[in-house]
Amino acid sequence: MIRFNSDYLEGAHPRILKRLSETNFEQTPGYGEDKYCESARNVIKDLCKAPNAYVQFIVGGTQTNMILLAAALRPHQGAVAAETGHIAVHESGAIEGTGHKVLTLPHKDGKISAGAVSELCRVHFADESFEHMVQPKVVYLSQPTEYGTLYTREELIAMRGVCDRWNLLLYVDGARLGYALEAPGNDVDLPFLAEVCDAFYIGGTKQGALFGEALVMMNDALKADFRYILKQKGAMLAKGRLLGLQFEELLKDGLYNETSRHAIRLAMKLKQALTDLGYPFYIDSPTNQQFPVMPDSAIEKLSRKYAFANFGRVDATHTCVRFCTSWWTPEENVDALIADLKKL
Amino acid sequence: MIRFNSDYLEGAHPRILKRLSETNFEQTPGYGEDKYCESARNVIKDLCKAPNAYVQFIVGGTQTNMILLAAALRPHQGAVAAETGHIAVHESGAIEGTGHKVLTLPHKDGKISAGAVSELCRVHFADESFEHMVQPKVVYLSQPTEYGTLYTREELIAMRGVCDRWNLLLYVDGARLGYALEAPGNDVDLPFLAEVCDAFYIGGTKQGALFGEALVMMNDALKADFRYILKQKGAMLAKGRLLGLQFEELLKDGLYNETSRHAIRLAMKLKQALTDLGYPFYIDSPTNQQFPVMPDSAIEKLSRKYAFANFGRVDATHTCVRFCTSWWTPEENVDALIADLKKL
Amino acid sequence: MIRFNSDYLEGAHPRILKRLSETNFEQTPGYGEDKYCESARNVIKDLCKAPNAYVQFIVGGTQTNMILLAAALRPHQGAVAAETGHIAVHESGAIEGTGHKVLTLPHKDGKISAGAVSELCRVHFADESFEHMVQPKVVYLSQPTEYGTLYTREELIAMRGVCDRWNLLLYVDGARLGYALEAPGNDVDLPFLAEVCDAFYIGGTKQGALFGEALVMMNDALKADFRYILKQKGAMLAKGRLLGLQFEELLKDGLYNETSRHAIRLAMKLKQALTDLGYPFYIDSPTNQQFPVMPDSAIEKLSRKYAFANFGRVDATHTCVRFCTSWWTPEENVDALIADLKKL
Amino acid sequence: MIRFNSDYLEGAHPRILKRLSETNFEQTPGYGEDKYCESARNVIKDLCKAPNAYVQFIVGGTQTNMILLAAALRPHQGAVAAETGHIAVHESGAIEGTGHKVLTLPHKDGKISAGAVSELCRVHFADESFEHMVQPKVVYLSQPTEYGTLYTREELIAMRGVCDRWNLLLYVDGARLGYALEAPGNDVDLPFLAEVCDAFYIGGTKQGALFGEALVMMNDALKADFRYILKQKGAMLAKGRLLGLQFEELLKDGLYNETSRHAIRLAMKLKQALTDLGYPFYIDSPTNQQFPVMPDSAIEKLSRKYAFANFGRVDATHTCVRFCTSWWTPEENVDALIADLKKL
Repeated sequence: MIRFNSDYLEGAHPRILKRLSETNFEQTPGYGEDKYCESARNVIKDLCKAPNAYVQFIVGGTQTNMILLAAALRPHQGAVAAETGHIAVHESGAIEGTGHKVLTLPHKDGKISAGAVSELCRVHFADESFEHMVQPKVVYLSQPTEYGTLYTREELIAMRGVCDRWNLLLYVDGARLGYALEAPGNDVDLPFLAEVCDAFYIGGTKQGALFGEALVMMNDALKADFRYILKQKGAMLAKGRLLGLQFEELLKDGLYNETSRHAIRLAMKLKQALTDLGYPFYIDSPTNQQFPVMPDSAIEKLSRKYAFANFGRVDATHTCVRFCTSWWTPEENVDALIADLKKL
Repeated sequence: MIRFNSDYLEGAHPRILKRLSETNFEQTPGYGEDKYCESARNVIKDLCKAPNAYVQFIVGGTQTNMILLAAALRPHQGAVAAETGHIAVHESGAIEGTGHKVLTLPHKDGKISAGAVSELCRVHFADESFEHMVQPKVVYLSQPTEYGTLYTREELIAMRGVCDRWNLLLYVDGARLGYALEAPGNDVDLPFLAEVCDAFYIGGTKQGALFGEALVMMNDALKADFRYILKQKGAMLAKGRLLGLQFEELLKDGLYNETSRHAIRLAMKLKQALTDLGYPFYIDSPTNQQFPVMPDSAIEKLSRKYAFANFGRVDATHTCVRFCTSWWTPEENVDALIADLKKL
Repeated sequence: MIRFNSDYLEGAHPRILKRLSETNFEQTPGYGEDKYCESARNVIKDLCKAPNAYVQFIVGGTQTNMILLAAALRPHQGAVAAETGHIAVHESGAIEGTGHKVLTLPHKDGKISAGAVSELCRVHFADESFEHMVQPKVVYLSQPTEYGTLYTREELIAMRGVCDRWNLLLYVDGARLGYALEAPGNDVDLPFLAEVCDAFYIGGTKQGALFGEALVMMNDALKADFRYILKQKGAMLAKGRLLGLQFEELLKDGLYNETSRHAIRLAMKLKQALTDLGYPFYIDSPTNQQFPVMPDSAIEKLSRKYAFANFGRVDATHTCVRFCTSWWTPEENVDALIADLKKL
Repeated sequence: MIRFNSDYLEGAHPRILKRLSETNFEQTPGYGEDKYCESARNVIKDLCKAPNAYVQFIVGGTQTNMILLAAALRPHQGAVAAETGHIAVHESGAIEGTGHKVLTLPHKDGKISAGAVSELCRVHFADESFEHMVQPKVVYLSQPTEYGTLYTREELIAMRGVCDRWNLLLYVDGARLGYALEAPGNDVDLPFLAEVCDAFYIGGTKQGALFGEALVMMNDALKADFRYILKQKGAMLAKGRLLGLQFEELLKDGLYNETSRHAIRLAMKLKQALTDLGYPFYIDSPTNQQFPVMPDSAIEKLSRKYAFANFGRVDATHTCVRFCTSWWTPEENVDALIADLKKL
């Protein structure tokens, strides 16, 4: 079975395992106060051109979202997200578990617009019973989105303006941020994210780390006492250096970008082949997730040899499926898939 | 600097790193549903002689305590713990963060007695305003305790009786369980824990894993829907196999016991040396944490070369300190320390 | 200004004030353990023909919803409600504040269907990642709904079946229950609610009490330890007798039904007049809330003399408004309104 | 049975019932935005000489504590209280229910000292693992305490200094505040409380209202968005005027002070009689709660005719009991009790 069903199927990039082995018997302080975390924090601040950034490493993405929002919100406040947003759907109510509602907006290809967020706020504060409803306080975006699409620089500038207008914080979930950075047409880079966001995270788990996300906080209000909340939510890793060391390695010498480019190149190769074969796409994604619509009969045949995700029925005989490439996908796997697609 | 200040200073046992490398490019399902987790679960059920046990692997100890208690308690219920218990002191209010009070009892060498728990329950239910107070529902013990001491089989049987009498659940935090299992005089083994507890965990982080704790649930009420709560609290590791693989390796061929015995042997060697040198002990610990009382002048000199923890001032010129050995402590480190102690 | 903008504009029915005065200097135990609460509980059990019902009186509706759901749900579970449901919109995130998501379904005239609830459950449990999403556990309905409409006996029987099929609890918010009971065409009475629901509440605040709702629990799992949770959420009224005494009086000699009939008769009188004058209705409500669509110019004129609620813009020149009658609305107020409507 | 077992045994002061009746059919806006609340807020600001105070009325005391602390604390912060404090013992974990730990200090006659609070903070921030422990953020006092004792002006000034030193908020629970204000030797008045506290509440339930507490917030950070949180916790009373009207009446013409003086005079009369009869006191209380130590045989005889609370066993044959007088206690009840005490 050749798997395209997610981008976290394998372990880690070999350079990470090598570094883990080399440093295994060094004795370091725990809880993220070691030299590897320190070094990785500096690398990130450099890449973001943000010397005032405050960086914390966290094991997983749901954990990162939950903790950042718990740190950001007072009890009556909520996060605005696309109805398809990860926090709205696939985190088992983690945000609600910390006491906060996720206020959803309709999406277009996984994205929400600055205008829609502004209108939600306008309606909220215009309602004479506004205190009877959850106050919008954070805008949650994902880059790329759950549909593989991207916010443009222009769109993020507009969203920042709306946030300033309504006193909201802007937070970007970058679980697959590398695949956004290297996508064709992308114009959003790390320094821009650091400028436009109150916080965002650079994903590791889906980008070649064993695990780990690097949360970058720009807004001072979020930084205050953050590590207490990290500990309270069970997220302060005892051997914190494992996180620092992985990010240090991933972000050194452009490895993060290089592996992301690899995934994007293979995704585009697959996209082109599918297009050439006449398959329509449910979403036009420039990143490592591709969403073709295929006849059920073709899906059935492919499934014998390849694993990929069912993304939803389109009509009586067609289904949208998702193929993921990753930092590690061997090119021959994509070539085999393309060959088999041609034979269908 | 030679460090004795904790038992999670290094990375992992080399056999774990080796296995991570060997399996790195296998593609597995995520979230703990892979073959390594399955295999490790079976190993644990075998070691516990508990085919009905339900095992989940979790990255850290605070996380494990928080999730187990969140799963076990209704909103008005709390956990009874020693005032020195980890959940009562060193988890930044993680339990309260999930809505539950920790009801503390005075400790003796880190332990609470079945009698004290029973009396707390009797007083609670005898009070005509009992509904105005938090209902005791879980007894939280640690084995070994935060003071390195052990509950005996006899004591745990008594505690189980009290739990049955008052309809409580019994939960044992085994962050350092290996060091308890191999301690001189210990009479509590895994099958007994599985028999006497509703849940307990087998620690990995302090026992030679990179990270990870194996939560063993025996009570069916705790098992139900547990993975939802795991996910909700941000604790469902994407590459769950990392946890399974580590526990599989640690528990295979007696590695867990062997490395624990190593730590205990060195701790006893150090204890004997300190005793011979006439140092009193704050607590008589049979495990890998040793708590001698030393003159401040001696501490000051040792500190130049060795790291160890300050455990509290005893009088104007003496302090209790803590030395930890671990699964990896080189014997020459202990020998060097003993030599330097003799020179003081 | 004559007010039709809500049904809680005045104090209480005079019989309630009279009883409060008569009993003012009696000394009673606190916290709902007095004879008035006891008596009111018995009256409710009789009216519901439910000797096993467990009745608790609570000051307000949001409080009642929040506490019942906190008592009913484990951390990963949520309540299914219409997107217009009170808990989904107008409780400032009270349910999320206790850690639980409200899972919303599209509504039709404020109602959700048994089929839609069943499909939501089917999709949830069919998803291979179901543990990554909030588990549906309680169905929340309101009778009448926020749009003044009613569930029929048939519809509730179907919903009960779906609840049994998917192991859900059925909870009915009866903030305006009296107006449902006396509505033309209604076929749902108290004994039927007691039979079909796991819990429901009989509203007092909007039905002639100073404050207070009577929560009726039928399911034993909800009854257990309920008063602890009541206290924990700050809802155990010290002078609990105030609640018991009000419900005793309201439910004695049919006062609750009589005052509800009064409100319904006036609402129907107003509805008929509006219909005769050719105004369309946004919703066809058989209860005390009426939702005509009126030209903005007419609304502007009426607003000088009458208070009523804006329910939403319909087109460029028309708006839906809401008129409420209540247990106390003087008939001359309705007559004056009708006369002025005719003059428009 | 003549009852001295609490100060909330009866309904309300007759002037309150009279006002409720007089205003019953006025139509007012809901949720505390009516003229009675507005007026009562102004009365309180005048009495406190605090034009910038922000006043909200809340039904009960546990509710008030829970909401104020939820508004004041970030997730990792807790409230410091005496181990006998109401929030630490008798609120069923309401504070923990909102996610926050109550950090307890040993008490002396129900009080904690500024020195002890300061030392707790010093130890917290001096600990290198401070982020692993709950951060102290609010000091919770009660005036009078649960033991009937009072903080002096001097003591509160010292506590304020400690709060400023460690960046804490000072909050005073005044459930029985009137009995403190009128106690012999008291030197703490409302303007001083408004000056020294970040927030405090003026109790109504135990002081002659049917229910209700007036929360006075001085610190702007607490005022922001407070009503959202009020609503979220189910505490925004629909007919909010009931609260405003009661406080307006209680605080008008000195009724609050007058009724409190009455309770104090009777308490002192009883105290003198008990002293003359040679009974020792467990606590020397200058307020409406008196705590004599009596032989069990005497208690047994008195219990046939009088209700009073058992406050704890003192030795094999003696128990501390609590007698409460209140705003309404008839003097003949106290005289009867004294006469019967003399006969023992």
